[in-house]
Amino acid sequence: MHNPSTHVVIRPIALREFCSTVLIRLNVPPDQATVIAANLVDADLKGIDSHGVVRLPIYVERLRAGVVNPRPNVRMTRETKTTAVVDGDNGMGQWVGMRAMQMAIAKGLSGMCAFVSTRNSNHFGAAGYYCQMAVAHDLVGLSFTIGGINHMTPWGGAQAMLGNNPFAIALPAGEERPIILDMACSVAARGKIIVAAKDNTPIPDDWATGPDGQPTIDPVEALKGFMLPIGGPKGYSLTLVIGLLSTMLSGAAFGSEVTDMYEDLERSQNIGHLFGVLPISCFETIETYKTRMDKAIREMRDTPRAPGVERIYLPGEREQILAEEHERTGVPIKQPVWEELRELGKGLGVILESQ
Amino acid sequence: MHNPSTHVVIRPIALREFCSTVLIRLNVPPDQATVIAANLVDADLKGIDSHGVVRLPIYVERLRAGVVNPRPNVRMTRETKTTAVVDGDNGMGQWVGMRAMQMAIAKGLSGMCAFVSTRNSNHFGAAGYYCQMAVAHDLVGLSFTIGGINHMTPWGGAQAMLGNNPFAIALPAGEERPIILDMACSVAARGKIIVAAKDNTPIPDDWATGPDGQPTIDPVEALKGFMLPIGGPKGYSLTLVIGLLSTMLSGAAFGSEVTDMYEDLERSQNIGHLFGVLPISCFETIETYKTRMDKAIREMRDTPRAPGVERIYLPGEREQILAEEHERTGVPIKQPVWEELRELGKGLGVILESQ
Repeated sequence: MHNPSTHVVIRPIALREFCSTVLIRLNVPPDQATVIAANLVDADLKGIDSHGVVRLPIYVERLRAGVVNPRPNVRMTRETKTTAVVDGDNGMGQWVGMRAMQMAIAKGLSGMCAFVSTRNSNHFGAAGYYCQMAVAHDLVGLSFTIGGINHMTPWGGAQAMLGNNPFAIALPAGEERPIILDMACSVAARGKIIVAAKDNTPIPDDWATGPDGQPTIDPVEALKGFMLPIGGPKGYSLTLVIGLLSTMLSGAAFGSEVTDMYEDLERSQNIGHLFGVLPISCFETIETYKTRMDKAIREMRDTPRAPGVERIYLPGEREQILAEEHERTGVPIKQPVWEELRELGKGLGVILESQ
Repeated sequence: MHNPSTHVVIRPIALREFCSTVLIRLNVPPDQATVIAANLVDADLKGIDSHGVVRLPIYVERLRAGVVNPRPNVRMTRETKTTAVVDGDNGMGQWVGMRAMQMAIAKGLSGMCAFVSTRNSNHFGAAGYYCQMAVAHDLVGLSFTIGGINHMTPWGGAQAMLGNNPFAIALPAGEERPIILDMACSVAARGKIIVAAKDNTPIPDDWATGPDGQPTIDPVEALKGFMLPIGGPKGYSLTLVIGLLSTMLSGAAFGSEVTDMYEDLERSQNIGHLFGVLPISCFETIETYKTRMDKAIREMRDTPRAPGVERIYLPGEREQILAEEHERTGVPIKQPVWEELRELGKGLGVILESQ
């Protein structure tokens, strides 16, 4: 399915083992390393390459630089029946995020709508992972985070003050796969502009602005400038509000306080998240809810299609299908990413084998 | 400020009085009519013309046709400490929405995160109104609703199965005005396509598709087709999830169950909403939160601007400034809307005077 000259296929178990061993070499405790590795590889299984093992090198670099704490003591600093504030002790975002979401789920299982805000965390990977954790417990899950770099401006601005902040909402279904919305607020991923700059091809004029805040089709100018949000002022408003929800309820960094995850290896980031759960059984019998969800999902899928469209997907469906397939057949990793991981492993005495 | 040949300026108090008297003539109890009128006029004050008194004629038509109940008994059918399910008894959406939001606020004031789902409601106007109600109580407010007409398709589809579903989030601030995000998921408002069709001018190709589900620049084809969502599949995913949150937790109509508010005067709509509150004091001292919010807001406003940009606005700021101004100087109502309202009033013996 993947071209062997561009991708290397790796067994998921081997990829998880590799990531966790690398993290353990960096002094991350084995229990934390195992779940962080599972979280990272889950993104690659789903085809969300941008948030999987491709991030391992920068995570390792930050651990090495001492700006991420490998052995955090993640703890609640404040708690009520329906809320908690979590201090991540500057641990890996995946570990902090999962612990905080577990606290929200525990409250949800006691029949409460609950929200857990988090500070002193780091980049946590794909937002969808956390809200999906709620699904098996018949809870609606929500996760919000501020991004690890400011790439956006307030609408009309010409200085990066906002992250391309993502949020995710998961809704359980019955026989159908759960719905998992997981989106950030930019029209295009920044990676696509990097590719266009390498290929020396123009980009659509709604992807980015130059450093003066005006739309550009020149990818080199765009990389010096700012990512444009979906729907113009709508996407600006959305990324701003996601950022505020992720930081104002916990005391995490916002706006000018946000450092650059890749460029600044001297300071910790104080990244903030917000996790929420809504117990379905408080509103509706689980059976009725699931029957209605399945009906809604099938109606969407069975909608008459526009010419050339083979199948209508529900949010997160394509990713879940891919993950099931890759779990059996192996995870395709892009050649340069594979080589970077092998080099990373070599330096730490950890071997990464292809399938 | 407004051209007298295109707009008529009306005192807010007179406009509220007119709306409530019209509703009372249609058998709506005075207490309900008063708050519904205030809700409608609030949208016009804020410059959200599309969701204000322009809707009064269709509301009246639906009340007259007997498909909206003028004297609903809005009641909780299920309740826990952090949740309620509200049956709107097919009342006016504004009344049902405000009652349900009040129930959420009451739970929030007891220190709980709370969500209230609603069924058997109707079109409730501007989503931002409800979450803004939470702000004075130092609660973050959220409101979601399904739209009253299906104008969108699942991504790749060619049949209207989804509303242009709006949601709103309000965050209190300190000395600054609260942040009020209030958005639906389409690139453009449908009203703009109606105008282009009248003017016989082409529309941008990302606004709508024709009835075959393919993008069109012909506004006449677009009106037979479907509204396009912001960010393509992102906006589709968002409108779908807002729709599911608004209906699956209450048993309201979704997908093929949704009727057309304007075309179908024979059936009630069973519109669903979801309202939520998060008590800020559970997470952070109100003082610290407000200080940080004000700092964040001022940083956004003071960001260096792109050429030609006079001012950077925060979400909902422009609307609040307009409302303060119009409360003093009067509400500008478009000439044809004013004439339609006068006619409506005449038939019911209610006089609408301009300022």
